[in-house]
Amino acid sequence: LQTTFEAENWSGDMEVRSAVDGTVVNAGVARYRKLASNHLEPEETWTDGSDMVAVVARTRQSKVTVAVAARTCILENGGSVDADRTFVDEPGFAAHDFTVRLEQNQPITIDKVIALTTSRDRGIADPLRSAATWAGRAPDFDTMLGAHSQAWDALWRRFRLEAETDIERMRALNLHIFHLLQTVSKHTIDLDVGVPARGWHGEAYRGHIFWDELFIFPFLSLHLPDLTRSLLLYRFRRLPEARWNADLEGLAGALYPWQSGSTGREESQVVHLNPQSGRWVPDNSRLQRHVNLAIAYNVWQYVAFTDDIDFLAFYGAEMLVEISRMLVDLTSYNRSLDRYEILGVMGPDEYHDSYPDRDEPGLDNNTYTNVMTVWTLLRTREALERIPEYRRVELWHKLGLSREELDSWEAITQKMRVVFHDDVLSQFEGYDQLEEFAWLDYQERYGDIQRLDRILEAEGDSTNRYRLSKQADVVMLFYLFSIEELTSLFERLGYEFDEDLVARTVEYYEARTSHGSTLSRIVNSWVLARSDRSRSWDLFTSALMSDIADIQGGTTPEGIHLGAMAGTVDLVQRCYTGIEVRPHGLKIDPSIPPELGRLDCRIRYRRQWIELHLTPTSAEVALEPGAFASPIEMEICGEMYTLEPGSSHVVEIG
Amino acid sequence: LQTTFEAENWSGDMEVRSAVDGTVVNAGVARYRKLASNHLEPEETWTDGSDMVAVVARTRQSKVTVAVAARTCILENGGSVDADRTFVDEPGFAAHDFTVRLEQNQPITIDKVIALTTSRDRGIADPLRSAATWAGRAPDFDTMLGAHSQAWDALWRRFRLEAETDIERMRALNLHIFHLLQTVSKHTIDLDVGVPARGWHGEAYRGHIFWDELFIFPFLSLHLPDLTRSLLLYRFRRLPEARWNADLEGLAGALYPWQSGSTGREESQVVHLNPQSGRWVPDNSRLQRHVNLAIAYNVWQYVAFTDDIDFLAFYGAEMLVEISRMLVDLTSYNRSLDRYEILGVMGPDEYHDSYPDRDEPGLDNNTYTNVMTVWTLLRTREALERIPEYRRVELWHKLGLSREELDSWEAITQKMRVVFHDDVLSQFEGYDQLEEFAWLDYQERYGDIQRLDRILEAEGDSTNRYRLSKQADVVMLFYLFSIEELTSLFERLGYEFDEDLVARTVEYYEARTSHGSTLSRIVNSWVLARSDRSRSWDLFTSALMSDIADIQGGTTPEGIHLGAMAGTVDLVQRCYTGIEVRPHGLKIDPSIPPELGRLDCRIRYRRQWIELHLTPTSAEVALEPGAFASPIEMEICGEMYTLEPGSSHVVEIG
Repeated sequence: LQTTFEAENWSGDMEVRSAVDGTVVNAGVARYRKLASNHLEPEETWTDGSDMVAVVARTRQSKVTVAVAARTCILENGGSVDADRTFVDEPGFAAHDFTVRLEQNQPITIDKVIALTTSRDRGIADPLRSAATWAGRAPDFDTMLGAHSQAWDALWRRFRLEAETDIERMRALNLHIFHLLQTVSKHTIDLDVGVPARGWHGEAYRGHIFWDELFIFPFLSLHLPDLTRSLLLYRFRRLPEARWNADLEGLAGALYPWQSGSTGREESQVVHLNPQSGRWVPDNSRLQRHVNLAIAYNVWQYVAFTDDIDFLAFYGAEMLVEISRMLVDLTSYNRSLDRYEILGVMGPDEYHDSYPDRDEPGLDNNTYTNVMTVWTLLRTREALERIPEYRRVELWHKLGLSREELDSWEAITQKMRVVFHDDVLSQFEGYDQLEEFAWLDYQERYGDIQRLDRILEAEGDSTNRYRLSKQADVVMLFYLFSIEELTSLFERLGYEFDEDLVARTVEYYEARTSHGSTLSRIVNSWVLARSDRSRSWDLFTSALMSDIADIQGGTTPEGIHLGAMAGTVDLVQRCYTGIEVRPHGLKIDPSIPPELGRLDCRIRYRRQWIELHLTPTSAEVALEPGAFASPIEMEICGEMYTLEPGSSHVVEIG
Repeated sequence: LQTTFEAENWSGDMEVRSAVDGTVVNAGVARYRKLASNHLEPEETWTDGSDMVAVVARTRQSKVTVAVAARTCILENGGSVDADRTFVDEPGFAAHDFTVRLEQNQPITIDKVIALTTSRDRGIADPLRSAATWAGRAPDFDTMLGAHSQAWDALWRRFRLEAETDIERMRALNLHIFHLLQTVSKHTIDLDVGVPARGWHGEAYRGHIFWDELFIFPFLSLHLPDLTRSLLLYRFRRLPEARWNADLEGLAGALYPWQSGSTGREESQVVHLNPQSGRWVPDNSRLQRHVNLAIAYNVWQYVAFTDDIDFLAFYGAEMLVEISRMLVDLTSYNRSLDRYEILGVMGPDEYHDSYPDRDEPGLDNNTYTNVMTVWTLLRTREALERIPEYRRVELWHKLGLSREELDSWEAITQKMRVVFHDDVLSQFEGYDQLEEFAWLDYQERYGDIQRLDRILEAEGDSTNRYRLSKQADVVMLFYLFSIEELTSLFERLGYEFDEDLVARTVEYYEARTSHGSTLSRIVNSWVLARSDRSRSWDLFTSALMSDIADIQGGTTPEGIHLGAMAGTVDLVQRCYTGIEVRPHGLKIDPSIPPELGRLDCRIRYRRQWIELHLTPTSAEVALEPGAFASPIEMEICGEMYTLEPGSSHVVEIG
């Protein structure tokens, strides 16, 4: 922090206080303010007697020690100046007070450099000593600024998407990439952190980890796959806790919780506050078992992009097996239908957590959950086939796996139940029994009806009674899988599936979704990108403005929506480019909206860089040269190519 | 811990105390006992009021919080029994006292299960809560024992070497592998730890990290390369501290210290005690700059075994560049000779830290250091060529590299000075001016003369005056490099080099080495393995007994010698098999000593497993099958083969 003071038309003394304030509280979310907001316990204040002060504090619950050391230098005429400093020493607060003489038109610059260390850091002794050491060693402001700029330059080179679109949209995309990279980066790789839904500065959701990774990892994997690996290891480290959680719920295997923090235990609330009614209402969100499906999907997709079989063998396969076991245990057999079912869960749509006429929470046969379960069981078995025999034996021993157990999954993958109504996929069994909602009426009465859950609860009513969704639920399937993949899954289950079913289902739920989650518009924009371009583009531009325009009316000050930010960037990157990993190679099938004009980016695929230059009418794909490089099989606009290192292909799009 | 008590011919009360004792001190090394030995500061004692007690303590200097929770259960007739427990609560000490009634011939079993957590652990909240949670969740003794055995089974399957040798030798090899695996293992991969020279239980050298990795990594890399990667990252995390250390010493780049601990700063003593004279003598061991050469070598070798270009690109290349810069800065130009020199350093041989007639410590032109420096500069440039162009640009920016800087290294790689005398390589310049040592005389007077430094210092004399070595120094070159590699390096420098020079040099120093380091016998056994089999075998079997027989007379109780343990195993694994990574492929050139009979092992090479079945007269090499597997180019006993996945080759050895 560099501050220059200049007295323009006076001379005199200026009093300066340069402090480290450990008495900060978390008060960024209005409705949390009655809860405990003071999370730091002061431990120590310190000065080196020269130009440094420091505060050491410990987080109250997790007991992480944090030290912040600050060095303050006074510069005049390019040289450093001294001043008599008074050490201000209060609980959790340390400062230097000093007076500098300002002569008219003689600027004085004050540089403050901070080092922050925690007891979880590596390569340190104690946090205070380490923070003080590195604050002391810091070079001058310009040198640090130079290094800082250089680091950001490197990040932009690695992650940038260049589109020929209007400046405001490009700026929004860049802002989203910026937020992603200040939340997780190369530095994250060596830490034990997950991706918090609202960034590190957003206090909503208290830093908890949900399923947003599903929307965030693809962009990271295509630029810095080691980062995704590290974030998946965050989940792997919490596998023992997830096993314990499954046990608590009477389930086999591992049950990752809907919300989690440092220990990995379930942190979901039991009740939550409706600010609109002032009432505390039961919170059943822990029934969103589908976070486990997202983790399984993320493991598989990371391996598909990277071919990192070692990760699969040592970490991924174990997570897949334990998640699959939990899913199998969650599944029951309906003898009368000769079908398998999953009862009493919640899908992604948080407006539905139970049936209006049932006492226990949970819904039956959520299509998203059922289909993803089948997919997960199939991929788990495939993973066990793919890893080296040597490690497979180790893993079978460790997990007590048997051929019988794996075979017993077969029936589920053939007979899982999927419920339909009105020629569309049902969000869950009984959805068609719910009442249609009076959308126009409510829109007229309330204006913003994104959070119908709060509105209806305040009226003594419930979203559970209506055919309305907060966000994409069954439609998520079309976001995560290609038509080909879904056709094969449904065929296996003995159900018919075609593009018309997709179109009907999208249209059906699109008409009944309030987009009360920022993730919803992305999913809908994605699935409409090739069938209803203008509607898709509207949803995309609206999602792009989520935080910039605070479209939910007040949620942005509580924290950015990282999943939505990543989702918009990924939509440009994967949906408009048509990037998919297929068994026969990497597929690129661009459909660049005319509004984007042109898209240039580079993606990391199986340890190599591929450059893409795409327009609505052409696709240029180039593979980087290099001794370590090897040819890549690719399907570009429907034709197969073998891309040699250092070569490129240009395809005209008819 | 399961203990069963049975009163054979009496009945009565038995008093039991089950404790966690945080008042332990480090008193394992007699000559350290006058130093501070109490490293734990008690923080908290705790009981859950039921069957658990816990102690929380903090390490005094590094301020790591450690919590140990113990649960004690009483079992009688297969069922759990209760007893009135008294909580014993003393500073740093917590116990349960209770009385159980022993009836004659009715055994009572007491199970004690411990969970240990530190503030550096991942996936936890605070250490006490986490330790208590997991001690509480622990299953019964038999279940835990089963999981424990299974984990060790998996380790043995992965790391075992099977030789047809006598049981005592095989047991020694297994003991060494066991010690390696209880020091570093799969669990280490997610921690921030290096390899301590004396294991974790040996208190000598205070847990410090030296250069022993050089002897330890090859065995790990050939079985669990991710472990080597993680141990190299331990070094990478300390690169900022190494840069700072270089700066302190007036050098560019990074200077890894000779001894280091958690912060990575130089921890070498300034004086050390000669227990034989009772005198404190200056310790110049920090002049062993060659630890940096070992780190560079380890980076390169890990990449050669694994082809992990991503590691090289993100971490390895940066370490190589910074080490090279330090080496270049250490090098000076001797105009009169038109040669480059490195002055004022120490080689691996710790008997020589200065010239008898010079005031400042350090030796000039240590051949090991000079030649390794040339090799390191060449490999650094090669690494910068090999990494993807994209990352190369990033790295050049970050490190401020220029073509001019890299070109300026060229002259050093062509004109580094190597000193010879009496037709052998000189350990350092001026070695030939030293006096010959009266070996027989001293052997007669002292018996064990492994530690001549102490003996001579006690006599008021110094090892610096004589042509004698504690351990392999210049001979290390023949241990680390093949004749082909050295020939090419010496040719580049304009010196003649051939096998005879190697033989003469080995013989010369072998006659003048006391083997005061356990690493020395391994190196000499290795370099003699094909030229003087019987001498080599003697040295090998002697090294194999280092700790079992405590051949240094008293050092084993202070801690095992992990480098020597790894070295003996690696000698079997790499020297007798002749495993080398060459540009044209993996070379296997076995020379199995008849005393070993037969050797079966499997090694991990570039993400695949290769099985080796070797006898003095035949070599069978097999590559594992698998979808992910690809053919490997190999040179087996001098012939090139392309080994297909799932295939094997048998070669008769003439």
